Amino acid sequence: MYRVITIGREFGSGGREIGKRLAQELGFAYYDKEIVSAIADRSQLAEDYVNQVVENQIRTYYPITVAVSLNAAPEDSVYAVNRSIFAAQAEILEELAQKSDCVIVGRCADHILAEHHPFRIYVYADMAHKIARCRERGDSEGLSDKELEKRIRSVDKARAQYYRFYTGESHDDRMTYDLGINTSTIAIPDAVTAIAALVRAQKQ
Amino acid sequence: MYRVITIGREFGSGGREIGKRLAQELGFAYYDKEIVSAIADRSQLAEDYVNQVVENQIRTYYPITVAVSLNAAPEDSVYAVNRSIFAAQAEILEELAQKSDCVIVGRCADHILAEHHPFRIYVYADMAHKIARCRERGDSEGLSDKELEKRIRSVDKARAQYYRFYTGESHDDRMTYDLGINTSTIAIPDAVTAIAALVRAQKQ
Repeated sequence: MYRVITIGREFGSGGREIGKRLAQELGFAYYDKEIVSAIADRSQLAEDYVNQVVENQIRTYYPITVAVSLNAAPEDSVYAVNRSIFAAQAEILEELAQKSDCVIVGRCADHILAEHHPFRIYVYADMAHKIARCRERGDSEGLSDKELEKRIRSVDKARAQYYRFYTGESHDDRMTYDLGINTSTIAIPDAVTAIAALVRAQKQ
Repeated sequence: MYRVITIGREFGSGGREIGKRLAQELGFAYYDKEIVSAIADRSQLAEDYVNQVVENQIRTYYPITVAVSLNAAPEDSVYAVNRSIFAAQAEILEELAQKSDCVIVGRCADHILAEHHPFRIYVYADMAHKIARCRERGDSEGLSDKELEKRIRSVDKARAQYYRFYTGESHDDRMTYDLGINTSTIAIPDAVTAIAALVRAQKQ
């Protein structure tokens, strides 16, 4: 069985960066947005649409009539379309986990791939650090600190709801992960060093 | 400034064992029950009494009249005695942190030594693993699983109350620690390998 590492994260905590660097360090495949593209391909839905669904922000963006494929007929509810997208996502994650060692960011992968006994990491930080990190990576242009904080809370809330909806669990409950990393105080390269050491120790 | 590592833990999660092994691995001093002995020495209170106080189980064990020294006169409340013990503890922790690199288990050391920027670890596990670990180390003789679970919950509750009373914070709030380790799924030697790698990376 291949080794699967899943990363849950708060928006702005640097979880994606940890995932990418860790995959590079260990020579594992890395999957994040690629999964959304794969779902879009398979379902013939627009990638943007799929992205809205998996980020749980579907309500405001698209009329239901854009959902034309999968198992959802136009008269079906948004709920059913979302369920179909989730099913496609689960199928794709399963395929990826059977292909090679990998690091997967988000996507409820910890829950979906439970049978693969993934190593489950949760990356978090305090608000000040999350704001600073968003500013650094330049995805907060034109927003005040207050607006940026609101955006961070909103993304985190949407992710939490999405996780709870599909898994019945709280994604930041420490029992749902193996290792919790506070990037307010731990530098990302140091976190990667520690996780890589742990994964290598577990292999022995 | 010396490096201070603090370990908060759930009862039966293996936090002490991680602390001991980590100190050995890094060549750091290790402090746990030694602190209670030092408080007892300094305050001329019985070690058992001090232990009951720092485990927050004072109510049922001793009449107030055994507390004869520190700043507490016999007519003072249990509250004042406890405060005095906490003050002695803070003093001792500060001395230890100024003496050498060290690992300290429990004792609100993360909070008391905040100015030393300790590396704060929280060790936790699910109930089944905590019960199994208690059985392994033989401190559950004659108890049924149900009784042992009750005991684990009671110790954890007392520790949580103690931490909240003296720090105003929740000891299992992830913002109060840097690294959370779930020993239901991570073996203790592997955890030690990872933490040691992290501490060494931070030193560079």
